[in-house]
Amino acid sequence: MNYELSHRMAALQPSLIREILKSTSDPSVISFAAGNPAPNAFPVQEVTEIAAEILRQEPISALQYSVTEGYPPLREACKRMLRERYGISTEGNELIIISGAQQGADLAAKVLVNEGDTVLCEDPSFIGCLNTFRSYRCNLVGIEMESDGLNLEQLERAMREQPNVKLLYLIPNFQNPTGITTSLEKRQAILELANRYNVVILEDNPYGDLRFSGSPVPSIKSMDTTGAVIYNGSFSKILAPGLRVGFLLAPTELVGKLTVGKQCADVHTNILAQMICHRWLTSCDLDAHLQRISSIYKGKCQLMLDGIEKEFASSVTHTVPDGGLFLWCTLPEGADMLDFCRKAVEKKVAVVPGSAFLADETAPCRSFRMNYSTPTDENIVKGVALLGELTKQLF
Amino acid sequence: MNYELSHRMAALQPSLIREILKSTSDPSVISFAAGNPAPNAFPVQEVTEIAAEILRQEPISALQYSVTEGYPPLREACKRMLRERYGISTEGNELIIISGAQQGADLAAKVLVNEGDTVLCEDPSFIGCLNTFRSYRCNLVGIEMESDGLNLEQLERAMREQPNVKLLYLIPNFQNPTGITTSLEKRQAILELANRYNVVILEDNPYGDLRFSGSPVPSIKSMDTTGAVIYNGSFSKILAPGLRVGFLLAPTELVGKLTVGKQCADVHTNILAQMICHRWLTSCDLDAHLQRISSIYKGKCQLMLDGIEKEFASSVTHTVPDGGLFLWCTLPEGADMLDFCRKAVEKKVAVVPGSAFLADETAPCRSFRMNYSTPTDENIVKGVALLGELTKQLF
Repeated sequence: MNYELSHRMAALQPSLIREILKSTSDPSVISFAAGNPAPNAFPVQEVTEIAAEILRQEPISALQYSVTEGYPPLREACKRMLRERYGISTEGNELIIISGAQQGADLAAKVLVNEGDTVLCEDPSFIGCLNTFRSYRCNLVGIEMESDGLNLEQLERAMREQPNVKLLYLIPNFQNPTGITTSLEKRQAILELANRYNVVILEDNPYGDLRFSGSPVPSIKSMDTTGAVIYNGSFSKILAPGLRVGFLLAPTELVGKLTVGKQCADVHTNILAQMICHRWLTSCDLDAHLQRISSIYKGKCQLMLDGIEKEFASSVTHTVPDGGLFLWCTLPEGADMLDFCRKAVEKKVAVVPGSAFLADETAPCRSFRMNYSTPTDENIVKGVALLGELTKQLF
Repeated sequence: MNYELSHRMAALQPSLIREILKSTSDPSVISFAAGNPAPNAFPVQEVTEIAAEILRQEPISALQYSVTEGYPPLREACKRMLRERYGISTEGNELIIISGAQQGADLAAKVLVNEGDTVLCEDPSFIGCLNTFRSYRCNLVGIEMESDGLNLEQLERAMREQPNVKLLYLIPNFQNPTGITTSLEKRQAILELANRYNVVILEDNPYGDLRFSGSPVPSIKSMDTTGAVIYNGSFSKILAPGLRVGFLLAPTELVGKLTVGKQCADVHTNILAQMICHRWLTSCDLDAHLQRISSIYKGKCQLMLDGIEKEFASSVTHTVPDGGLFLWCTLPEGADMLDFCRKAVEKKVAVVPGSAFLADETAPCRSFRMNYSTPTDENIVKGVALLGELTKQLF
């Protein structure tokens, strides 16, 4: 057979960083390259009890086919959480359960984006969703990130000048990869621009509950009165990513098509996992749980920041996140970032080259992403010291 | 906001049959319209014990992020099953775990089909996958089904004359919706044509293990020596559809792209569910289990066939499946099938209008699908009698 690949997949090349990420399967390498929740953040006991309870009480419901929109009690519980916890009105909107937030990006693009249409994103942004958008052969345009969110002038120019701008992808809280939180003022301004230029915002908020300093900033969806925002939520960082459960709150007019899109993709999300999320969400002390896991990340983040302050060459700058799992380091001008990352792997420490997160992966980039949630405390200290040595050798 | 939907989703209209399917949520309606496994076919006790065991022994692995290709021990167990149970050589191929077989159709189309390319399918065929192909804006061309599989002349003509034929979608065993099994001779001929015209076959085999009469026919994949076939398997009918676990065995050259496609879609399949499938597959007596559930379906199918023979007007014909969940009835010439289905719902029995399964849903159709796996035995007898009355009134 002579396989002829589709244009969409032929264009998606394995990234340069694959090589570096591969090294993380070597157990002697300290990996700051992942994005996994800390193992001790999982409520193992609760999930174990809940799973047993479900399979004892409603085994057939947990194993049989279910509806595409999601398990109705979970949909209600998520809507209640959005209203009560985040002040998001669900009126004029509907909520569907999805197989992790990645599917939310896929469905939003499937429903809104034709080949050649423009998708705007923060630059840098989460590579997983950028690849999803690329798989729709869109015109992916990155808008420069500043310390308080997007550069608004660039955003407006792109909305005005790029062809058929359909979607703006944002991670307003503790962004992946930078750790940056978009300010309230910018959220308001972005929403206004989206309305002015008729662009749907996909607000991806997987990390919002993992705040460990500063005050919560209202979500863009909570300010949305015109149906400009699709809100993408996830159980991956607050409960367990292996369950692959997230949710989309979207304007009612879009929900029918999002649901048809999901039906074509995977019929429905694993129903046992949906039932686990439902019972967990409605029975746990969510405040206490989130406080507990945020304090885990606060400790790990501080450990990494302390190490960076102590060990890194002072010409290397970094962000100071108020929550989430990541921080973003930038090497001094003239530095060869890919060379730095390669040398770090030789020293048995893996970080992710920042170019992986750019809309244009070939653009110049002096930054790299560091994750503090996955490594042990011991490895954070050890790995940062090794990276520090390298910065002092090179810069 | 003024939403502009993508062309791909704007074209996917809710089907005419939605109205009829909606009636099945009315508990007083006897539904032959579903496709769910019988509740007593689920190995509830085993799954309950296995889930508890996993969460006791390896809770973090079951809750943490995992790799896109799937849980390695499950991939191995599936490959072993394919080799030992079905004589499928896995050499030159690789197996990945997917979120149900529907995702297999989505990934195959994503990797191989551009807008305007041709996808060939049996006519009628499984509506879920047809909609998936439609979502890629392909030229979907149905090939007439005969009692032993596709019309080969039509198939060859379509391969020769249709533009850019990329994929042939087949359900060779106990096809949905007809219950027809493709003969060995036709499987060989189809494979030869696929090779001659360089068309990849997607062999979807969710029902193959549910044989209750006749002898197994080798899968097309087992005869594939050139990498012409992607084999799509599923745990939905042998274990539990709510888990959403299936697998693709595909030529190694395609697996990388299929994996990137999956990564864009949902990162990976629920890992707890994958671990459940693995432990179940490697610990259960699969022969005994499949014999038990096939005999459930044999009994239900026979009950429905007996009722049809006894109650239906003799001018209504039907298939006699050797396995699976469905049979296919055809009304006499001149009958208005949609009218029949509507009148059936008025009598509180739901069947699926056959036109729903056609590549061209507006083509003339006198057939409807009946499912015997979901209804109780009592409802099979009662529902068939009600339908019989109607056939005798009308034909």
